[in-house]
Amino acid sequence: MNGAHALLATLEANDVDVCFANPGTSEMHFVAALDDAPAMRGILCLFEGVATGAADGYARVTGTPAATLLHLGPGLANGWANLHNARRARVPLLNIVGDHATYHAHLDAPLQSNVQLLADTLEGWYCRTTSSDDLAADAARAVQAAFGPPGRVATLVLPADVSWGDVGTVPSRWPRATRPAPLAIDEPTFERAIAALRSKRCALFLGGGALTKEQTSLAQRVASATSSRLLMETFATKMDRGSGVASPERLIYLSEFAVDQLKESEVIVLVGSTEPVGFFAYPNVPSRLVPEGCEIIQLAPPGSDTLGALEALVEALHAPAVALERGERTAPPSGELTTQSFAAAVGATLPAGVIVADESNTSSVHLFGATRFAPEHQWMTLTGGAIGFGLPVALGAAVASKRRVLALESDGSMMYTLQALWTMAREGLDVTVVGLSNRSYAILNMELTRVGASRDGGASARLLDLDDPTLDLSQLALAQGVPSVRATSADELVVALERSYATPGPMFIEAVLPKGLH
Amino acid sequence: MNGAHALLATLEANDVDVCFANPGTSEMHFVAALDDAPAMRGILCLFEGVATGAADGYARVTGTPAATLLHLGPGLANGWANLHNARRARVPLLNIVGDHATYHAHLDAPLQSNVQLLADTLEGWYCRTTSSDDLAADAARAVQAAFGPPGRVATLVLPADVSWGDVGTVPSRWPRATRPAPLAIDEPTFERAIAALRSKRCALFLGGGALTKEQTSLAQRVASATSSRLLMETFATKMDRGSGVASPERLIYLSEFAVDQLKESEVIVLVGSTEPVGFFAYPNVPSRLVPEGCEIIQLAPPGSDTLGALEALVEALHAPAVALERGERTAPPSGELTTQSFAAAVGATLPAGVIVADESNTSSVHLFGATRFAPEHQWMTLTGGAIGFGLPVALGAAVASKRRVLALESDGSMMYTLQALWTMAREGLDVTVVGLSNRSYAILNMELTRVGASRDGGASARLLDLDDPTLDLSQLALAQGVPSVRATSADELVVALERSYATPGPMFIEAVLPKGLH
Repeated sequence: MNGAHALLATLEANDVDVCFANPGTSEMHFVAALDDAPAMRGILCLFEGVATGAADGYARVTGTPAATLLHLGPGLANGWANLHNARRARVPLLNIVGDHATYHAHLDAPLQSNVQLLADTLEGWYCRTTSSDDLAADAARAVQAAFGPPGRVATLVLPADVSWGDVGTVPSRWPRATRPAPLAIDEPTFERAIAALRSKRCALFLGGGALTKEQTSLAQRVASATSSRLLMETFATKMDRGSGVASPERLIYLSEFAVDQLKESEVIVLVGSTEPVGFFAYPNVPSRLVPEGCEIIQLAPPGSDTLGALEALVEALHAPAVALERGERTAPPSGELTTQSFAAAVGATLPAGVIVADESNTSSVHLFGATRFAPEHQWMTLTGGAIGFGLPVALGAAVASKRRVLALESDGSMMYTLQALWTMAREGLDVTVVGLSNRSYAILNMELTRVGASRDGGASARLLDLDDPTLDLSQLALAQGVPSVRATSADELVVALERSYATPGPMFIEAVLPKGLH
Repeated sequence: MNGAHALLATLEANDVDVCFANPGTSEMHFVAALDDAPAMRGILCLFEGVATGAADGYARVTGTPAATLLHLGPGLANGWANLHNARRARVPLLNIVGDHATYHAHLDAPLQSNVQLLADTLEGWYCRTTSSDDLAADAARAVQAAFGPPGRVATLVLPADVSWGDVGTVPSRWPRATRPAPLAIDEPTFERAIAALRSKRCALFLGGGALTKEQTSLAQRVASATSSRLLMETFATKMDRGSGVASPERLIYLSEFAVDQLKESEVIVLVGSTEPVGFFAYPNVPSRLVPEGCEIIQLAPPGSDTLGALEALVEALHAPAVALERGERTAPPSGELTTQSFAAAVGATLPAGVIVADESNTSSVHLFGATRFAPEHQWMTLTGGAIGFGLPVALGAAVASKRRVLALESDGSMMYTLQALWTMAREGLDVTVVGLSNRSYAILNMELTRVGASRDGGASARLLDLDDPTLDLSQLALAQGVPSVRATSADELVVALERSYATPGPMFIEAVLPKGLH
């Protein structure tokens, strides 16, 4: 038995049974060992950013880590952007990074780089195993570290000779990580929160793991009982939504509006989230969003027992049950395809149980409203701001679940990790991808104005325009084996969505918007 | 005048007049300032790995840095793999990385990350400007640092408020870097080299900047006069080739063959290169390629005066002129498309002056032989082993030069940075791309065997197979605006290549090989 076999056996023993892989030469023994690890599902990705984003999506759905298999420093770097998003989503994730043999590293061969320093930038957990005999224990520690709490990116570096080397003593039982309990709530902080909720103008601010329907329902009871506002972070890792599910008010992305949203609050009680801050700085707009003098109470930090905290609040405040709002879903739209009718088409057709991966950016403005009373579903967003998360996260969510996944992409963002489409086709995953074509970086056109820059010249405009030449999004999908259709009206989009939901496997729908629309 | 204006003025004053850009919100003032910087050519890339690879290609052709424009940590990370290749190519390159405003960084907003640590992994030069007044001086220092010698990756971090902030005092003259002279040759080392060449079985081993036709010709005189072997590194940054150009023997990629190539040498004299080592480690194959006891003389390290060293060797050894071999180019092949007939088709059609960016990997084995007597051309290869260099480097080379560029890609490697095709179309660049389709990671199938792993199972085979579904390479190009054609025989490939060379603008040729062929 070699190191790779021991590693795979340990992963299987820890229920890590999916590996999103983009292997190279130094990972060949790991790849070969997959033939003897039937419980591990190896899924080939054609670019590492697809593999890491897929592991993020998998973890968002299951709460447990998938493995990635990456090739030395460049592989880790190619996967870094979506690992950044996973870090911000605080999900457990396990990178296996193949590296040069231990005795080869000092030779500074072409692929040599400082993998440890690169991994350190992810602010998670890192270990480079140097002996085949240590591999099982290190792998179990990696899984443990990935769980946190809160979840984090664990990176296990696997030198080639550690992978191919013989394991001296095969243990009778492979080491196992234990899934940790969430962190306990601090009692004095809880008392402060209770006092504030009873006497001050409060906002209960939810994020992270606190956006399940059970918890938002509890939070709504607390808010009703104390006349507090119920808010949530702008970019949720995963939230339950739909008719009959509580719907906290989402913090607005644009700082000036967010400041306005929060300006009446004397106290903000955080549950599962950190203090909200501006996504970017802008001239003459504050970076901190909470008003001057507003007290921040960090009741339940990320990784803590948010459910317990909310239950305890309900109990302490004797907060009565509240009726959760139900409503009719949006009617199917007709006519021109706009961001409004796009949102309405999604809302009108969304089947129960769908998982949405939303990277529609400027096209997303109307989506939350239009899907408010759709059947129950889950929504995942771009937690770390690193573009290119949508397709890979949708891929990983589909691997993790039997449920249909709806990926909402824009042309600009789709181009970062479009290779995910091929893996969706290969694995026959039930993913509906809507590719919104507005032929521009519409969000940047908006930002160019917002930062106070002038827009009168051709050079700057050309850096934000995607229309020369026009990207044929549906052809990009077809070329990777995903059936594609183009919708140029709201009616066509409704039909395409309905057909896609009724058809097993992936489907790509290009939604052609007026140019530059946002 | 704001910081962005001062930065652009300084870049223009330093003849940095191309910027491969993938901007975001924090770079909007830089983008807006392009309207007032007519000498700067902003070129939009749809993924950062395209931008950095293009800057590498630009530098390989011109010897001077292009700028990139990247968006915070994720932008730098997405560009990292091709920056690694540029680092190994030792070319000058200037990253401009937009970042949060100085006062915003401590808030840990979603896009916050440790950009300095990330840049440190590139082992080049780093500066984060904190005042608009410092920006011009820092930019000039960055250009200076990029030049080396040897060339390196310089990263200038541009916080948003430094970009939008007013410059207090506008200098009458923008600061300028001076292009440095190459490092001097060490005299005692030169004497050792002379003595060795006169008395020992020597190999003259060329690399880096020493592969110009002038220098290889001098090196061939030295080799002939001393009965030494003339070798070159496996992966050249750029080399002159063709009929009438000296042709050093290329070190073989596979370590066991390279060891055999070097085994007779008592002394290896390095010119422009470092000691050759195994690209990867393999069980039971040495990682150092030079024989036990072989003396290594580092005559002219990377960044030093390799031309001067070779001229001095010729003079000291009174090495007579030698006739440079001329020959007939390969005849056009016919019949089945194989790696042999592919190579012959390239050799039979290559016009004079073409710049080749070669990432054809397993399909490249016969290329050097088949193009040996083609008209004079230049050849660029994958210096750092990070896949996805070919299309971006070809793009950058075409921007840098009026000459036709030929990019040789494989299906596996093409998928890493295929977004480069769109920019080729947008800029109307004279690039011929041959996409070799063998529907597998053929190099990994070879490596799987080489590392001693078994191949009898389905799980491992599936991680190396690209044929389910088949990627339609020409459709991927067409969808991005590049005219495409498919060649299924050697005859069709010859016709397609000839047509492409005669047609302005980019063209994509899918060369369909038998599956898995290498």
